[in-house]
Amino acid sequence: MNAQIHAPTLRVRYEETDQMGVVYHGNYLKYFEVGRTELMRRLGFPYSEQEKKGVLLTVVEARCRYLAGARYDDLLRIETRGEIRSPLRLRFGYRVVREEDGVVVCEGWTDLACLDQNRKLRRLPEEIRRGLEHQSLPV
Amino acid sequence: MNAQIHAPTLRVRYEETDQMGVVYHGNYLKYFEVGRTELMRRLGFPYSEQEKKGVLLTVVEARCRYLAGARYDDLLRIETRGEIRSPLRLRFGYRVVREEDGVVVCEGWTDLACLDQNRKLRRLPEEIRRGLEHQSLPV
Amino acid sequence: MNAQIHAPTLRVRYEETDQMGVVYHGNYLKYFEVGRTELMRRLGFPYSEQEKKGVLLTVVEARCRYLAGARYDDLLRIETRGEIRSPLRLRFGYRVVREEDGVVVCEGWTDLACLDQNRKLRRLPEEIRRGLEHQSLPV
Amino acid sequence: MNAQIHAPTLRVRYEETDQMGVVYHGNYLKYFEVGRTELMRRLGFPYSEQEKKGVLLTVVEARCRYLAGARYDDLLRIETRGEIRSPLRLRFGYRVVREEDGVVVCEGWTDLACLDQNRKLRRLPEEIRRGLEHQSLPV
Repeated sequence: MNAQIHAPTLRVRYEETDQMGVVYHGNYLKYFEVGRTELMRRLGFPYSEQEKKGVLLTVVEARCRYLAGARYDDLLRIETRGEIRSPLRLRFGYRVVREEDGVVVCEGWTDLACLDQNRKLRRLPEEIRRGLEHQSLPV
Repeated sequence: MNAQIHAPTLRVRYEETDQMGVVYHGNYLKYFEVGRTELMRRLGFPYSEQEKKGVLLTVVEARCRYLAGARYDDLLRIETRGEIRSPLRLRFGYRVVREEDGVVVCEGWTDLACLDQNRKLRRLPEEIRRGLEHQSLPV
Repeated sequence: MNAQIHAPTLRVRYEETDQMGVVYHGNYLKYFEVGRTELMRRLGFPYSEQEKKGVLLTVVEARCRYLAGARYDDLLRIETRGEIRSPLRLRFGYRVVREEDGVVVCEGWTDLACLDQNRKLRRLPEEIRRGLEHQSLPV
Repeated sequence: MNAQIHAPTLRVRYEETDQMGVVYHGNYLKYFEVGRTELMRRLGFPYSEQEKKGVLLTVVEARCRYLAGARYDDLLRIETRGEIRSPLRLRFGYRVVREEDGVVVCEGWTDLACLDQNRKLRRLPEEIRRGLEHQSLPV
């Protein structure tokens, strides 16, 4: 993956830690969301614009593997790629990497279904289909 | 305050702690929300019903004082009272008490303004005005 | 599963919804945590006691399937069971059921590894191993 | 305030919105935390370093005024300043400004007390006292 292009960074907030002294495991799903938000923006179809057009992407399945504990104030890189799974569904894959030492702290994926304003399944918009097809990068 | 009646209890979730080993201070605003949700339900006008009728209550100001650190799995009692401040605005006051030893861990208040579906200020509904006037309980 | 025994209920907090009007998908991992906290308490080894003895359970993998959107103020039942996977590791499985209509809104599991105070892998304590072996309930 | 220097920006995450379509009010305390974390880093005493030295800053009081609703994907600037209130206590003041139109969406402050590793009150370290005294910037 070309991390320079598709990987936003973020800093772990104090609020995101728990009493074990590391990031609470559920918070990585928020980091994944940051990753796909920035990927969609870079590919030219910001998700905020999609919702204004009545196109909703809703998470239908998620998986995370936790490999190391990220800590408060760590700078994390959210490597993200997307792929079309069906006319109605796409998958984003993620690797969360600690910038300081390159350690992968978490990896996972989320599957999203495309809905219209009435929360009915609809086909993915052409711009999303084309944008992700041309993102021919290995994870 | 008649705590038996107006004070829901909740348990501190692991997720709500931070690396200092206590509840993250921002989470008390969520606990306050639990308090006013349950108070409104007890008084006969659940907030979920209000929104269905197009009545929104939005927080416009908040204050918290942190007096002790609540810990994971502590059982907390959210003592809550409400009062009308103007035809458009009401205040909820809160005391968060640890059940085990009666220590007040946090206290504060939130002011809420009443909006209609177009997010314009509107008068508080009669049922809310009357309900809170009759809640003649000291904090 | 004997839901009367092992399934705590909780109400969806306003804070847990997102602008799609349903519970943000990442928050189900917090609900799962409530489920296993209450299951461990019922089985006689509260997690809060474990940490005091230097036994930490850390989530190493998680999976969620989202089947329906839970809404603000919905009462949800967190059906939870646990099973030993190895001398060092256990799995909790979850079904989140909306009380009002019995709809399963989310299901998933989390795998947890057992650590000592120095964050080194250790064997699961006997009380946890025995407790979960005797929990011979189907999911 | 010299916003170029002391005001980090962040993007509103989807998770941070609620069903009213705006940022949940409690999340501004997390944004305030980002503001003071970055201010302390710029002034040469990162908070993460303080905790390693056994110096804890704990929030003892907070106040927020909500002036407008920030939305998903808004770019927000967290203008932050700090001031010494006593040998044991300091205050950070915040203004959260939407970059696109300069609207102040929230303002507030938090008071923090200085604790040692045993959670006892202690004097603020010299580097913090001096750093904030020399931060002679108006809010």
